[in-house]
Formats: sequence, structure tokens, C-alpha cells
Amino acid sequence: MKIQLPRGTRDIMPDEMRVRQRVMDTLRAVFERFGYVPLETPVFERYDILAAKFAAGEGSDALKETFTFEDQGKRKLGLRFDLTVPLARFIGLNPKLRLPFKRYQTGPVFRDGPIKLGRYRQFWQCDVDIVGAKGMAAEADLITLTAAAFRELGLPAEIRINNRKLLCGILQHAKVPKHLWDTAMVSLDKMEKQGHAAVEKELDEKGIPKETTEKLMGLFAHEDVKQLHAIADDELMKEGLAELTFLFDLLDIAHVSEYRFDLSLVRGLSYYTGTVFEAFLKGSEITSSVAGGGRYDDMIGGYLGGRQQFPAVGISFGVDVIFDAIRGTERPAVPVTAFVIPINTMADSFNAVTRLREKGIRADLDLMGRGVSKNLAYVSQQGIPYAIIIGEDEVLSGKCTLRDMASGTEEKLPLDEMIKRLK
Amino acid sequence: MKIQLPRGTRDIMPDEMRVRQRVMDTLRAVFERFGYVPLETPVFERYDILAAKFAAGEGSDALKETFTFEDQGKRKLGLRFDLTVPLARFIGLNPKLRLPFKRYQTGPVFRDGPIKLGRYRQFWQCDVDIVGAKGMAAEADLITLTAAAFRELGLPAEIRINNRKLLCGILQHAKVPKHLWDTAMVSLDKMEKQGHAAVEKELDEKGIPKETTEKLMGLFAHEDVKQLHAIADDELMKEGLAELTFLFDLLDIAHVSEYRFDLSLVRGLSYYTGTVFEAFLKGSEITSSVAGGGRYDDMIGGYLGGRQQFPAVGISFGVDVIFDAIRGTERPAVPVTAFVIPINTMADSFNAVTRLREKGIRADLDLMGRGVSKNLAYVSQQGIPYAIIIGEDEVLSGKCTLRDMASGTEEKLPLDEMIKRLK
Repeated sequence: MKIQLPRGTRDIMPDEMRVRQRVMDTLRAVFERFGYVPLETPVFERYDILAAKFAAGEGSDALKETFTFEDQGKRKLGLRFDLTVPLARFIGLNPKLRLPFKRYQTGPVFRDGPIKLGRYRQFWQCDVDIVGAKGMAAEADLITLTAAAFRELGLPAEIRINNRKLLCGILQHAKVPKHLWDTAMVSLDKMEKQGHAAVEKELDEKGIPKETTEKLMGLFAHEDVKQLHAIADDELMKEGLAELTFLFDLLDIAHVSEYRFDLSLVRGLSYYTGTVFEAFLKGSEITSSVAGGGRYDDMIGGYLGGRQQFPAVGISFGVDVIFDAIRGTERPAVPVTAFVIPINTMADSFNAVTRLREKGIRADLDLMGRGVSKNLAYVSQQGIPYAIIIGEDEVLSGKCTLRDMASGTEEKLPLDEMIKRLK
Repeated sequence: MKIQLPRGTRDIMPDEMRVRQRVMDTLRAVFERFGYVPLETPVFERYDILAAKFAAGEGSDALKETFTFEDQGKRKLGLRFDLTVPLARFIGLNPKLRLPFKRYQTGPVFRDGPIKLGRYRQFWQCDVDIVGAKGMAAEADLITLTAAAFRELGLPAEIRINNRKLLCGILQHAKVPKHLWDTAMVSLDKMEKQGHAAVEKELDEKGIPKETTEKLMGLFAHEDVKQLHAIADDELMKEGLAELTFLFDLLDIAHVSEYRFDLSLVRGLSYYTGTVFEAFLKGSEITSSVAGGGRYDDMIGGYLGGRQQFPAVGISFGVDVIFDAIRGTERPAVPVTAFVIPINTMADSFNAVTRLREKGIRADLDLMGRGVSKNLAYVSQQGIPYAIIIGEDEVLSGKCTLRDMASGTEEKLPLDEMIKRLK
């Protein structure tokens, strides 16, 4: 048997795990301060539940990338590919749930897709959603939360915001034929990265008449909501602008300075019905988005058979990217504060390490019976700040040797003194 | 499509999730204070890696209960059924890992078994292991950690400890034929629950001679290590007793008063080679064990082909049982401290909720545009301690109405005052 990992997966090593735990603790504290509650669902769902997402209109290869299997009763199952389908299924199973349901969920999701650099078949998602609330206050709640989250993570972020109603209104206003809206949006989404000329060329190739494209590009030259207000004659456009204006007012009230109106922001998923937003890091090498979301008022209701409407807005944090960004900014964590080195004094050394831990000091001791120099090399290599050496001399004198690894200085101290020093 | 969960699985609702998070935070703090580092492995492994556990001697139906599937490349995979196989695989993949490797891992594991009350096909394990250390100090480290963990969880526990070498030595001393050792141990394991007479009868039925059984029962009447020392003539017995004696000395040094020597403790898994231990709650309705483990010096090395020895000792916390025990002792958590009720004052209300959150106060606001009485009923039902009502009067006067839900008293206060009050 060859010892190997499943293709496209990886272990998360202790150093990285500690960063992840710190990120998740920070996010969790923000989510809870904003009144969101945690939910956990199984890592697999019934296959028909997963497949229904695509039947409901989402055109994607994700279903082909679903790991599928059967249980003993020959029921077809699949590993979840996102946390949105489980949310919709949960809403359907809990009809008495009080709305709005403000929940967050973090966990692994799975796609049996092609393996590229940095792309894994098991990866992490962290979703925050509000189900049941219509107004812009829900968007404001989520976007304020997003801004607070990146501030508390110490990552300067910019949150770009747009509105699908406004986008559709503009396409209508410019008289783009309705059957070309989806493909036009795909091109318009590239404005930020590829510039106006490239988008114009693409729209042309897609058969959109020259004068329509020109009108469209003219509208896209407007960089703020007020300018667009002045020329809005289309109802959808007006509705989208009114929503954005109220949302921006609420964000200003909440001192969210990180947001920016971005008319070219489309976001891929076709199920968005209003506000869309996406967060990017400022001054970072990471240019991909670190969070993104929007309003999807029809998706859950449609998923559950269309008898009831479930307006919803959500954001998904790209936790794997965030972990990478954080890892780049900080030194690896140190496993413990002090490491006890016994020299044939296991009983006294075990007493010392226990006393340290009882006082809340992270401490460890040599379990391998290694020599002092090997142990000191380990302590130094791990970046542990203090070594405590306990030999027979130390036991007789009632003192331990405390070595400050940074300065190399040693002191003989009674255990109580040493604990005070390390606290 | 019928909206349903996969058979044998469940969602973990917010109230339960909060208890789980608190338990895991407490355990994590203890693990890290003792110098253990976190590891995460994929939820699925290659099938041959999983199957090798059973080829290595562990006789169990668990492999039949493994969810198996294939990836796009037709590689056979399986959902992990424990966290020990992934640990062994990880050790094999990381030959340069510094030993001892003290790691903890928490996560879901999966068994496609029969569904009984309280038994799920996805459940949680939390394992803490030391790989690479031989001496009893490793056991002492783990058992001291276990005692600290239950203390900090507020659950009084008893940790029963035994030693497989001692057990085998006693079987040898009593002249039980070697091929009957395994089955004899299965019977002896029932001493605590079913009493001496039942065990005697069972041993008799298994074909162990009457005088052998009597000798065995006589040995099992000894309740402490010193008594057994006095009669030990068998080398294995002496070795087991010496290990236990040193372990108990170290536990006494560490003020672990929760342990008890229990000669009848066997533990099911055949791979244990020395110390075994199991924790139970005292004064609880929960009679099943809440943690258990032992030393398994041959398992990892054998698993990896036998070229190298990897002495190891580990404990597995039964986190699902612990969650249940904790849930029985405490009231459900409150989602937020304060809930803001706007009466056509979304802008001012959003300002208020933002200021509260900025000061670290967990706060939420009505996103549904419900009336005051409906909102107050919600606040009361959720156990949220304070409601903050902001109507046009409040906006004009620059004060909000703070309602203490327990007493029903209301006060009008400026926002700053209110924040001070709630902090």
C-alpha cells in the first residue's frame, strides 16, 4: 500500500491551523455581535436535493463535479458543493423557523473538478445569510458586518457594490435585446479588469448594435448614483437607484467608509435579484475577491416549490484566501511559552510543568529523555521563549534554571518566583 | 422532490451549536496550554488507506460501514470512520516530523451503520494523541489534561485506569490458555457492570477450567496495585505494575484526584499495548464513558509497513455525549444583549445598533418592519435582556427608550448613556 492523500486534498498543518483558528474566532465574534447564530449541516446531502439547484436554473458544471455515493439503503447521496443548498433545504425542513433567520455556517465543501494550483477538491466556505427580510437594512447589516470583519482581521478592504435591477434597467434603457442581457452582463463584468475598449469589442462581437453599445458605454461612464438619477427614465433603473441610495445612506450612518459604487460589478450567479457586492483587499498581492454576495429573493422559494417567497441576502467569505492573506502578515505562532527539560528528574519536572499550566501558562516538557543540548536546540528552533532546566542540583536547591532563549541569560529561581516571572 | 435530510443525519441547531462552540473553546484552551497542536485532515481518505486498518488485525465491521465512492479518475475513496487512521497516514506522509508529535483533531466521522436512538451516521470525534514517546510521562500528560478538561467544563469525572500488560500477566499467572485471552478479556470487562458471578459463569461457558477461573477471580479481588505487587511473580505482571505505579506517582504529583485503578477495565480495541483509561461522569444520568484511550505502541508502525516503531498514546473525547451533558446543566444562550425596535426610524435605529456593536455589545435590530408589540413578544421569547425602542418622539428628543425585559421598566436615555448602561 502506498501512503498517500486523496488527489486534490491536503492536510492542514498545525502552523496554518492556528492562523485559521484565529481568523475563525475573529469572524465568529463579529457575527455574534451582529446577532447571527451558528448552524451546522451534514457534509453530505441527498443527491436530488443537490441536483435541484441546477434544475432551478443555475447553469453550471458543478453537478458534474459532485462526489456521489449511496448508503446501505441504496439512497443516492452527494458531498455538498456549497452551503447555500443546505441552507435552502434547512429552511424547507423548518417551516416554523422565526424569520428573519440570520445564520452563519463554516465548513468544508467539495468539488471533484480539475486540479490547478491552489485549487483543492475539499475547500472551506464561510457563509452569512439573512433569510426573510426584504428591506435594504438587511444589506446594510451584512455589509457593515463585512467591513467590521476585515477591520478586525487587520486587512484593509474595499467593498464594491452594485444592483442588478439598476443593471437590467440600464440594459433596457440602452435597448439591449432582452435575450442578450445575460451575455452582455458577462462582458460588462470585465470593465474593471480589461477596460472599456475590450468590453466594447466583445459586445460588438456578441452582435449588439454599435449605437446600443455606445449608449451603454456612455451610461457606464457615470461613476456615481446621483448622475444616474438625473438621467433615469426606466422604472427598473429608478428602483435600483433608490435601493442603492438608501443602502449607501445606511452605510454612511454606520461609518462604513470602505464601500464604493461599481456599476460594472455583475457577479456570476444568475440568481441574484438586487444588490450585489464583492470585497477586495487593498495593497495586497491577492487580487481575487475575498468575500462576495448579494440579494437572491427568488432562489430559496423557487427551490422549495414556489409556494412561499423567501427574500434573502447573503455573503460568502473566501476563508482560504483570507487565511493566506493573514499568513503573509504574521509570524508563526509559538506552541508554548515555556519548555521544561528534565535531567533524570521526571517527578519534579512533571510537578513544575503542572504548576505552570495550573496558572494558565502554556507549557510543555520533554517526553523523549533527550539531552539538554538537543532539547535547547528544539526550544530555540520552535521559537519557544523560555527553557526551564531541572537537574539534580536544582531539585536539591529547590530552584529551577530559567533560560531566556532570546538573550541566552540563565537564572536560578524557586518555582513560585518563576511562575510570577512568566505570567 | 421531497425536502429531507440524508437518513441518519441531522442539522445542529443554533442553540446546540453555541453549546458545542463553548465546549470546543474550553477543550482547545486546555489542549494548547498542554502544548498540543491542531491538525486537520480531509473528511475522506483513499479507500486502501482506510481498509488497511482492518488488514492490520482490528476485527470489526467498521469497513462494511464505510461510505465509499470514486473520484473522476476512478480512484476509490471513503469517508473517514475515525481520526486515528488519518493520523497514522499523516505520520507516514511526514517522515521529517519532529517527535513527539502532540496533536489534537476534532471533526466529523462517518459510519453507514444501523440507525438507533442517538446514533448518527455523521458524528463528532475529538482525539488527542502523543506519537513518539514511550515513557509513562506521556500517559500522565494526557490523563492530567483529561482531568483539567472535565474540571474546566464543570463536569465532575472519574478516570479509570488499567494496564494491558498487567491484565495479560494476570491471565498468564492464572494459566488461562493464550488462545482464550481475548475472549477472557471480553468477559472480564463486564465485571464493573454485571458483577463477579456473571463473569464467572461466562468464563465457565467459554471453557476456562473452574480452578483457573477461581484463581482469576481471586486476583481480581485485589483493589490496589500494592496488593498485586506482593503476589506478582510473572514478568509481564511486574512490568504492568511498575508502569502503573510510576503513572500514579506522576498523577499524584499533578494533583489529579479523579483517577482510580480498575483492574477490570479492558477497552474493546485489540491494538492497545499498555495503559488503558476511560472517563465517566460522576452523579450524571449519562453512564456511558465520556472519554477513553490508551497506549498503542505497535499500531502506527505496523500500519506503515513495520520498518519503524511509533510508540503512541491517545485519548478520544466523546464530544457528542459531552455536549449532551453540558446542555442538561445550562440555560440556552441568548442571541444578543439588546434588540433595537424602529418605528419608522430605520436610519436612526441603524445608527443606534451600529454604535452598540462598535462598543462590543451584541445587538440586533428589527429587519421585518414588525409592530412594537410583536417585536417585544419576540425579544421576550428569545430571552434577550433589553429592548430599545426608537420612534419619532425618541428621534426628536435625542433619547431612546430602554426597556428592561425582566422588570418591564422603561427609561428614556441618550444613546451614550444607554451604551454605558449596557456595557
